[in-house]
Amino acid sequence: MKTDIQIAQEAELKPIKEVAQQIGIEEDELEFYGKHKAKLSEELWDKIKENPDGKLILVTAINPTPAGEGKTTTTVGLGQAMAKLGKKALIALREPSLGPCFGIKGGAAGGGYAQVVPMEDLNLHFTGDFHAITSANNLLAAMLDNHIQQGNALKIDPRQVVWKRCLDMNDRVLRNIVVGLGNKMDGMVREDHFVITVASEIMAILCLAEDLQDLKERLGRIIVAYTFDGVPVTADDLQATGAMTALLKDAIKPNLIQTLEHTPALVHGGPFANIAHGCNSVRATRMAMKLSDITITEAGFGADLGAEKFMDIKCRMAGLHPDAVVLVATVRALKYNGGVKKENLAEENLEALEKGISNLEKHIENIQKYGVPVIVTLNSFITDTEAENAYIRKFCEQRGCQFALSEVWEKGGEGGIALAEKVLDTLENKESDFHTLYPDDMSLEKKIETIAKEIYGANEVIYEPAAKRQLDKITAMGFGNFPVCMAKNQYSLSDDAKKLGRPENFAIHIREVYVSAGAGFVVALTGAIMTMPGLPKVPAANGIDVSEDGKITGLF
Amino acid sequence: MKTDIQIAQEAELKPIKEVAQQIGIEEDELEFYGKHKAKLSEELWDKIKENPDGKLILVTAINPTPAGEGKTTTTVGLGQAMAKLGKKALIALREPSLGPCFGIKGGAAGGGYAQVVPMEDLNLHFTGDFHAITSANNLLAAMLDNHIQQGNALKIDPRQVVWKRCLDMNDRVLRNIVVGLGNKMDGMVREDHFVITVASEIMAILCLAEDLQDLKERLGRIIVAYTFDGVPVTADDLQATGAMTALLKDAIKPNLIQTLEHTPALVHGGPFANIAHGCNSVRATRMAMKLSDITITEAGFGADLGAEKFMDIKCRMAGLHPDAVVLVATVRALKYNGGVKKENLAEENLEALEKGISNLEKHIENIQKYGVPVIVTLNSFITDTEAENAYIRKFCEQRGCQFALSEVWEKGGEGGIALAEKVLDTLENKESDFHTLYPDDMSLEKKIETIAKEIYGANEVIYEPAAKRQLDKITAMGFGNFPVCMAKNQYSLSDDAKKLGRPENFAIHIREVYVSAGAGFVVALTGAIMTMPGLPKVPAANGIDVSEDGKITGLF
Repeated sequence: MKTDIQIAQEAELKPIKEVAQQIGIEEDELEFYGKHKAKLSEELWDKIKENPDGKLILVTAINPTPAGEGKTTTTVGLGQAMAKLGKKALIALREPSLGPCFGIKGGAAGGGYAQVVPMEDLNLHFTGDFHAITSANNLLAAMLDNHIQQGNALKIDPRQVVWKRCLDMNDRVLRNIVVGLGNKMDGMVREDHFVITVASEIMAILCLAEDLQDLKERLGRIIVAYTFDGVPVTADDLQATGAMTALLKDAIKPNLIQTLEHTPALVHGGPFANIAHGCNSVRATRMAMKLSDITITEAGFGADLGAEKFMDIKCRMAGLHPDAVVLVATVRALKYNGGVKKENLAEENLEALEKGISNLEKHIENIQKYGVPVIVTLNSFITDTEAENAYIRKFCEQRGCQFALSEVWEKGGEGGIALAEKVLDTLENKESDFHTLYPDDMSLEKKIETIAKEIYGANEVIYEPAAKRQLDKITAMGFGNFPVCMAKNQYSLSDDAKKLGRPENFAIHIREVYVSAGAGFVVALTGAIMTMPGLPKVPAANGIDVSEDGKITGLF
Repeated sequence: MKTDIQIAQEAELKPIKEVAQQIGIEEDELEFYGKHKAKLSEELWDKIKENPDGKLILVTAINPTPAGEGKTTTTVGLGQAMAKLGKKALIALREPSLGPCFGIKGGAAGGGYAQVVPMEDLNLHFTGDFHAITSANNLLAAMLDNHIQQGNALKIDPRQVVWKRCLDMNDRVLRNIVVGLGNKMDGMVREDHFVITVASEIMAILCLAEDLQDLKERLGRIIVAYTFDGVPVTADDLQATGAMTALLKDAIKPNLIQTLEHTPALVHGGPFANIAHGCNSVRATRMAMKLSDITITEAGFGADLGAEKFMDIKCRMAGLHPDAVVLVATVRALKYNGGVKKENLAEENLEALEKGISNLEKHIENIQKYGVPVIVTLNSFITDTEAENAYIRKFCEQRGCQFALSEVWEKGGEGGIALAEKVLDTLENKESDFHTLYPDDMSLEKKIETIAKEIYGANEVIYEPAAKRQLDKITAMGFGNFPVCMAKNQYSLSDDAKKLGRPENFAIHIREVYVSAGAGFVVALTGAIMTMPGLPKVPAANGIDVSEDGKITGLF
C-alpha cells in the first residue's frame, strides 16, 4: 500500500495560477511561492468583497482516538466530491504545525487520495506564516525584557509578566525556565515559559483579524504584563505594535494550494483546538465564501473543542452563519470508545459499538444545540462490517441526522459523492437556525459553566482559588463580555483523557484563567492541559529523511 | 533628503524573471517568492556547473565606526557600475538578520542609490532561510533534551551539552537560562543558552556546504554533547539529521533579487563576522562565478574579521581563488579612528586623518599577506575635503594599492564607475597570488597565534585555563587540522572595542574554544564577545510601522 507522501509525490500538480483561474482569480492577484503555492493579494479582496456569500459547511468529529478519524481527509475529499458534482466549492483548512509533524501526530494535509498538495511544503515551512508569528511573538518578548533591563519606566512587575516566548516545536524543557541569568548586562532574572506557536495569542489574532488594520489594533491591545500597581501593560505601551505588524504583513494573506484533484484550497492559520481556538482564519473563510458557492472548512479535534469554538468564538466574532455541520466518525474509533483495545479494532463488535456510540450521540446533541443541521459520515476502513455501518446509520437517522459513508481516503472525490449529495440535500431542504451557545453578556463564570455542562456533560465546575481570583480580576478589567476559549484535552469530553465514550457525573477543573485582550477571548485552562507539548520516546522526526535526489521521505 | 526605504519603495522593479534572463537563467529554473524574489533551482546548477569560473572580487572594509563605512553600499554600487560599463557582473551578498534590524544597526540592503530591492522583504523574512535554520537548530535541541528525558540511552551528560537553542532576535535574557523546571514530565533541569541564529553552526554549514548531500553529512557530524565518559554525541547519534535536512532543503538554494538599477544579486546565508565566519554561501558564490564574468561579494565587518575568514575559511574549504580585494574606508571613519568625536567629523582634520589612517594601513598590509591585489575606495561624504581625499590617495598609492573615490550612495552605478575602472585595470594587469595565511597542518594554538599576531597585530595570546584544556581536547579528538574561526569584537583590531586605530603591544584573550565539527572549523571566543546580542535602550523596532495602505515605514 502506498503511503500518503508517496501518493502526494506521484501526483501531477497543476500550476497554481490555473487552479486560481477556476475560481476567477487572475494571475496578478496572486503572490507566488514557487509554482504550487500562492498568497491572495489585498487587491483580490477589494475586487470580491461585495460578492454574495456562498454556503458554509463545518467538518468536525467525535473525540479523537489512536484509531484515527480523518477529519481533514473528509474535508478535502468532500471538496473534491463537490467539484466532481460540478459545484463551485472551496476548501478552507488550517496550516499544520512543525511540533506534531516531528512529534507523534504527523502532518495535516489529509490522507490517501484526499490530500492537499504539495504536502511536504505544507507540512514544513509552507509560506512562512508560522515563522512570522513566532518572530512577532518573540520580538514582543525581547522588547518587554529589554524595557525592564533599560530602566523599567513602565514599572513592570517581573513576577507578573504574562507574555510568553514561543517556538513552533514540541519542546518540553522550555515549559518552565529561568531567564536573565549571568551578570548585569544579561537582563533581570525571572521565571519564564515557552508555548508552542499555535498557542500564541498572535496566532489567534491572525486568525480572527478582519484585515491588516484590525490586526494592528488587536496586536496593540495584547496585555504582556502588569505593573507593580496591577495595571495592565500592552504591546502599544512597549511601542512594539508597528514592528510586529510589519512582521505579519504577508502572513495575514490567505494561502492557495490544491487537492490531488486540483480543487482549490485556502490553507491559513493554525491554532490547535485543545490549547487555542482551533479554527482557520476568518480572512480565508470570508474570501472562500466570496469566491465560491460552497465553502468547506474544519475545526480541530472533536466537536467539543473545535466546533464549540468555531461557533462561539469564530462565528460570533466574524458574524458567520454556518449552514451545515459534517460530523466525522469511524467504526474503529466508536468501538475504541466502547472499550475495545487498539489491536482488536479490526473485529466486528456490535456490543462495543453500541457502548461507544454514546460519544457520537453526545456530539450530535451538542451541534443541534446551535441550531445547525448535522450530517454524520463514517470514514470507511476495510475492516468495517455491513452490520456495523447499518447500526450507525439507523442511530443517526433516528436523531434527525443525514448519514453517508465516505470512501475518500481510498477513492478521492469519487468516494465522497454519497456524502456530498447528503450535504447538498441538507443545504437545500434544511434551514440552519444558527445561534451561539451563550450571549456576550453572560458572566464569564456562567459561560464556563454553560460550556462545561451543556457541551462536555459535566455536573459541576471546580476552580483553583487562583483561577477564581483571576476571573474576578478579568471581569473587573472590563473583559467580562468576551467569549471563553476552553483549553482541554482532546481525547475525552471531560478533562480526564482516560474517560472515553460519554462520561457522566464528573467535574471540570479550572486551573488558570487569563485574558487574551487582542484576540478578544478569555482562556480557561482545565485539568492537566499544557501549552507546550513534548516529543514522544520515538519522535516522527527520527524517520524523516531526504533522499539523494532531494525527495523527502518519512513525513506523514 | 530621502531615506533609504523611501528610495527603495519609489523604485520600479523589473519582474525577477527578466533580471534572471540577463544572466541566462530561464523562467523554469527559478522558484518564485512573489514577483521580485526567486530561488535558483538544482536544475540550474546542473546546467551551469561546467561553465568556466568568472573573476571573484571581495569587498571588505576598515574597522567599523559609528560614522558608517558603507561596505554593502559599495558592493552593490560596484555591481551597478560594472553593469553600466557593459560587464556581465553578479553581486553575492549575505542575508540580513532580524536581530540588528530591530536593534541598532538596521537592515543590510545597501543604501541611497546603491541598494538591493525589495529592501523590506530582504530585511524581514525574505525567503525564510533564517527561519529554516532556526527550526533545524531547535529541532536538534528538542530531540537532544527529549533523548535525555526518555531514558538517555546515549548517556549524555547534561552538564556537557554544547548544542544551544537559537532565535533570530536580539534577546539578552536568553543568553543564560535554566530549562526543564517543573515536574518529572517537564524534562531534566540543566543550564542552557540561546544564540542568535546567525551564530548557529547550522548557518555556517548552510554557507559552507557544496550541495544538499554535503549539507546532510555536515549536519550529521555536529557535536551536540558529550557522554559521562567524554565521548562526543552527534546529530547522527540522535537520528536528527534527516529531519533537519528536510527543513533545510529549500534554504540551501541561493536567492536572486535585483539592485535599484536591475543588476542581478544573489543574496544567500548570513553569518555575522564577529561571532561566526561572516561570508555568504559557497553555493551562491560558485553559482555567481558560473553565471557571470565578475562576481562581487562581501564579508562582514572589518577585514580583520570578514576578509580573514573569507580567505582562511571560505576560500580554503571551497577552493576559491579571489582575484582582487576592494577595501572600503571613509574620511569620517578614519578621522574617528584618529580620535575625533562623532559630532566633529564634518570638519577637515588632516592631523587626525594621519593618525587614524593607521587602521587602513594595517588592513592593506593584512590583505597583501594573502597575495591578493588591493583597491582602496573612499565612500564619499559631502563633508570630505579635497585635501583629505588627496592625502589618502597618496597614502594608498605609496603602498601599491589602486585608489578610487566612490559616490554610489548618491549617484548609484554612475558614482561607482571610477572604482569599477580601477578594479578592471587590476584584474587585467595584476596577478593574484592568493594563498591562505596558515596551512591546515599547523597546530590550533599556532593558528590562533598566527591570526592574532599577523592580522590583529597582537604581541601575545593569553588563554583562560579552560580554553587551553579545550584546545587540547579538540586536538586529541582529531580536529587539529581545522581552520580557526575567531570570535572578536568588530570595532578594534584588538579584543578591546575601545582601542581604535592600529593598536600595538596588546594581548588577545581566549576565553573559550569549541569545535564546530559540521562546519569544519574551531571557534575561539576572545575578550567579552557574545553570541546573543541585546537590544539598545531605544530599539529600531520602536520606529517601525505599517501605514494604512500597507506600506512599511521606519525600516533602515
